[in-house]
Amino acid sequence: MKKHRGWYLLGTGLALVTPATADNGVGLQQAMDTVWLITAGALVFFMQAGFALLESGMSRAKNSVNVVMKNYMDLCLGSLAFWLIGYGLMFGDNPTGLLGQTHFWLGNADHMDYSLLFFQTMFAATAATIASGAMAERTRYGAYLIGAVIVCGMIYPVYGSWVWGSLYKGSGWLAELGFIDFAGSTVVHSLGGWIALAGIIVLGPRLGRYDEGGKSRLIAGHNLNSVALGGLILWLGWFGFNAGSTASADVSIGLIALNTHLAAAAGAVGALLTMLLSRKPILLTHTINGGIGGLVSITAGCASMEPLYAVITGLVAGWVVVIGSALLDRLRLDDVVGAVPVHGFAGAWGTLAAGLFVTGDMFNPIQILVQVLGILAGFAWAFPVALLMYGLIHLTVGLRAGTVDEQRGLDFSEHYEVAYPEFQSALLHQGKH
Amino acid sequence: MKKHRGWYLLGTGLALVTPATADNGVGLQQAMDTVWLITAGALVFFMQAGFALLESGMSRAKNSVNVVMKNYMDLCLGSLAFWLIGYGLMFGDNPTGLLGQTHFWLGNADHMDYSLLFFQTMFAATAATIASGAMAERTRYGAYLIGAVIVCGMIYPVYGSWVWGSLYKGSGWLAELGFIDFAGSTVVHSLGGWIALAGIIVLGPRLGRYDEGGKSRLIAGHNLNSVALGGLILWLGWFGFNAGSTASADVSIGLIALNTHLAAAAGAVGALLTMLLSRKPILLTHTINGGIGGLVSITAGCASMEPLYAVITGLVAGWVVVIGSALLDRLRLDDVVGAVPVHGFAGAWGTLAAGLFVTGDMFNPIQILVQVLGILAGFAWAFPVALLMYGLIHLTVGLRAGTVDEQRGLDFSEHYEVAYPEFQSALLHQGKH
Amino acid sequence: MKKHRGWYLLGTGLALVTPATADNGVGLQQAMDTVWLITAGALVFFMQAGFALLESGMSRAKNSVNVVMKNYMDLCLGSLAFWLIGYGLMFGDNPTGLLGQTHFWLGNADHMDYSLLFFQTMFAATAATIASGAMAERTRYGAYLIGAVIVCGMIYPVYGSWVWGSLYKGSGWLAELGFIDFAGSTVVHSLGGWIALAGIIVLGPRLGRYDEGGKSRLIAGHNLNSVALGGLILWLGWFGFNAGSTASADVSIGLIALNTHLAAAAGAVGALLTMLLSRKPILLTHTINGGIGGLVSITAGCASMEPLYAVITGLVAGWVVVIGSALLDRLRLDDVVGAVPVHGFAGAWGTLAAGLFVTGDMFNPIQILVQVLGILAGFAWAFPVALLMYGLIHLTVGLRAGTVDEQRGLDFSEHYEVAYPEFQSALLHQGKH
Repeated sequence: MKKHRGWYLLGTGLALVTPATADNGVGLQQAMDTVWLITAGALVFFMQAGFALLESGMSRAKNSVNVVMKNYMDLCLGSLAFWLIGYGLMFGDNPTGLLGQTHFWLGNADHMDYSLLFFQTMFAATAATIASGAMAERTRYGAYLIGAVIVCGMIYPVYGSWVWGSLYKGSGWLAELGFIDFAGSTVVHSLGGWIALAGIIVLGPRLGRYDEGGKSRLIAGHNLNSVALGGLILWLGWFGFNAGSTASADVSIGLIALNTHLAAAAGAVGALLTMLLSRKPILLTHTINGGIGGLVSITAGCASMEPLYAVITGLVAGWVVVIGSALLDRLRLDDVVGAVPVHGFAGAWGTLAAGLFVTGDMFNPIQILVQVLGILAGFAWAFPVALLMYGLIHLTVGLRAGTVDEQRGLDFSEHYEVAYPEFQSALLHQGKH
Repeated sequence: MKKHRGWYLLGTGLALVTPATADNGVGLQQAMDTVWLITAGALVFFMQAGFALLESGMSRAKNSVNVVMKNYMDLCLGSLAFWLIGYGLMFGDNPTGLLGQTHFWLGNADHMDYSLLFFQTMFAATAATIASGAMAERTRYGAYLIGAVIVCGMIYPVYGSWVWGSLYKGSGWLAELGFIDFAGSTVVHSLGGWIALAGIIVLGPRLGRYDEGGKSRLIAGHNLNSVALGGLILWLGWFGFNAGSTASADVSIGLIALNTHLAAAAGAVGALLTMLLSRKPILLTHTINGGIGGLVSITAGCASMEPLYAVITGLVAGWVVVIGSALLDRLRLDDVVGAVPVHGFAGAWGTLAAGLFVTGDMFNPIQILVQVLGILAGFAWAFPVALLMYGLIHLTVGLRAGTVDEQRGLDFSEHYEVAYPEFQSALLHQGKH
Repeated sequence: MKKHRGWYLLGTGLALVTPATADNGVGLQQAMDTVWLITAGALVFFMQAGFALLESGMSRAKNSVNVVMKNYMDLCLGSLAFWLIGYGLMFGDNPTGLLGQTHFWLGNADHMDYSLLFFQTMFAATAATIASGAMAERTRYGAYLIGAVIVCGMIYPVYGSWVWGSLYKGSGWLAELGFIDFAGSTVVHSLGGWIALAGIIVLGPRLGRYDEGGKSRLIAGHNLNSVALGGLILWLGWFGFNAGSTASADVSIGLIALNTHLAAAAGAVGALLTMLLSRKPILLTHTINGGIGGLVSITAGCASMEPLYAVITGLVAGWVVVIGSALLDRLRLDDVVGAVPVHGFAGAWGTLAAGLFVTGDMFNPIQILVQVLGILAGFAWAFPVALLMYGLIHLTVGLRAGTVDEQRGLDFSEHYEVAYPEFQSALLHQGKH
């Protein structure tokens, strides 16, 4: 290259770029941090596709457009809500330790602020979309989206401000107590799980899911290949989710990424062993969910554990996912994708594990108590607020789809189109196509 | 690590690697630039999968092998053509401001040249593949590929050289005028849109698309989940597309990535609002296309706007996509995927917006005039040349598939195989399988 | 950002992060290396999804859960096996040149060790999963997984230690001879191909694949869109696979990535030309496999060739893939996905090409001899050991599925579930659904 590096900037009339100078160490570090934050943020973004594929695959074909559109639009509306309100509530100046108060609708800001907002937006979008899977196949589209905006704009950021504090002034009260939740087993995943739990309680189970005798009838999803692809994409994105949470280019990223990977592998193996030893069929859905549960569980302690304990954390998470799914089913709570066990229960386990297995400070009772406190605080905040929110939505605009709409498939009633016009036999039988 | 970093190089007999020395700031910067360019280039590459999935999903099953093979092979042939000819035409020494004249079939070059060629190849491949979607379901395979090679090797690079100038000596005439098109709303996307427009004019609409009375009959695609996944992959890749266009590791990447994300979200919301307010069904295809339109529109000004204006740019783009699709339909122009409104019209809007919303220099009339000039120059170059090209292809080898072939499905006539041998009911009825 | 960069670390009680100081060149380099290794490792990880999609698409629907579960679980078990045993065997202190002897179940280690283990685990997982495609549709699930664990834990690392030597003390004997296999055309791909060959020999062909007269009956896969998407994801991941093998952030990454891309494009074109010139139908499967063959072939010499030779290497690989597939078919060896020609044969060609086209040292006879030696050593190690392994598995637990199970589909017999409950017509006909 003959030209000075500055000429790499193509086609900008007025460039807002401030190149890092070659001999400015701080400039180089910041440039690296930016590259890493954006790369990691892109990976976390891709998890939205993972969720969409997994949820679509576990739903019936007649609802798959609806499932995908919920995922897509909660990403869009949630991102705008987080930029407008959520980021400020979560990371703005926080003198009380309870709530951020600055940095709303970010603009005219420092370069690094934009990078951090970009990265954190993807986290908020993850928290918001967890409930969509559990509540699939009987939730009205617009009503669901109202809930997602409130999650991104308020429920998630408030708890997040307690744990991750402010990026500017002040700190969250749980952070002050030394609560460990590096990338969000509780902040993102358990919260999403408790919100999902609230949603499926307000909604009730899908038609035909439980008969009058109380017996549970499994409703099979329409595409297990989609479920597996979704699970692999989530796993991929999690490398950005966990390792990007250093928010800087740092040698510790290696351990974090390795722990993430081993916990995912162990989670799937844990689920597989649980099914094997209880002589149950080894279902693909549970296996994939075991892997995701492993990822959820390592999210809290990925930066503070040795790899052996990441494996243990993941193995236990796989077991938690399988028995948790059975428990929900026994309680007649219809969670279409297992979001409550995978994100809620495994998130709680992972947050506890982060306190058990701290390298150089194993099984510290104070740390364990603080972890339990944080787990309970997350539940005590998110579950009642979400219950209230979904209850209000239900009473005002109506949360659950009508019976005929649910039977016909939400793709008809909400979207006037179908996912597979050439293949859907149900439609052929109904004479609709 | 006990060993010196140099030993990380595994298994090379003769290594061409020149490690950046630890205390050489320029070396570190260049190494970072390389890492970022390759990472971003990989993301842009993945957009090829996004296009393939989106186009396949919006086509009927009997044509989906053909759609995918067009995307795959225009990527392969276009990449080779760009290495051989296109890169030199676009970025070589440019004394006249109209055309590059050096750096063909790049070899024996500087390290950074290879990185830039890698990154820019993915842009050329994007420009080339935009037309394939619009022209789907009735274009002959080989004829289409001839066109794609000419796009990558000539049509795209010539205009690109006017806007992004040379990386070595000289500059493009539009760049000299201060035309802003940071990552290519016009250079890549509008150009692709105008080429697509030329193609569908030469081809004519698909059989049955418009009846004799002039009424339009929507032909439904075979897989809307595929469309959504394609849209999400494109969104992911766009982070590399826009933020990678700094061509260096730089703190400005954060604002660029954030603007990209917010514009995409706003684009989908803009499309949704347009459909809602005009009391039309909220179709998945239009919603996804709205998001892509948002991405196309922010591509020009992503480095020079505040986030609020990225949101506005995206919202308007969503509206442009919906009304643009309706306009094309009224003109009886059959664009299978909406490439003309999404890439052409939204690209033009985005290029204009980049002149309206320059931070610190808003609504500058000279800048706006230059933007309009660049938009018109793009159309005046690409549209007639593409019309001529497709016309010549049509007259020589034939561009449009025969009637029987179109009815049977291009997978039969062009590829002798079908995408879903176990599921395609049309084939069962025809007794072909 | 008002706060010091150190405050970017969110929510960690005890942080194990050691930030690179702003003016420490070595620290900055290591931080960059880490970012690159993790980014590249994530890309290589994603290839698992590519393999799963490709193999699933080339199999019949009744086996697709089984195919995907084999891919998913060999990733999980293989990753754990590589952490426990494989990494140490491959990269541990190697005084004899034949085997590593330290660094098992890595923990309490240096930061860079974790990054390298993370990256290398993805390579091991790639080697392990190559055989699953070839052996699809008639291999028992548990039996297959036993083999995958032995590949990751022993077969792959031993040969790898000969070529890539130790990262700590000592070196492999092939490395000492100057054998070039930068990212593993032989170490990963040929080895995987020879293991696949051994597997399909022990298994025998699928029912109905060859009739008594010896005529070959093509069994069509159930989803060609899936095959294409898989091929594009593999291509994407390969940028991490090849360029990440510098194991450091380095300007040479540009040439490596460019060579990788051009070879893939040339591979697909080579396969297309071969089919065209032999007047055979231009099949999607062969075209995609040609592209992958190009990627496999450039893996050895991507760091030491000029782009022109990368194109030549890829073109020849495309031809090798097509004629190799025909050869296998003539020998009545049933390879469902073409793993043996794509990974085995093209890997051998690529390893040879790496010795032919060394920049500045072209056609060096000593180098060529060393390359041939390494290729033969890879075959002489992997093929007999895999034959023995699969033979033992067959004699003990049984490798091949029973006849009725194979006819019904392995999804039934191994997993008690089906991939597409709403669409699978075979099931409708059997009255199973």
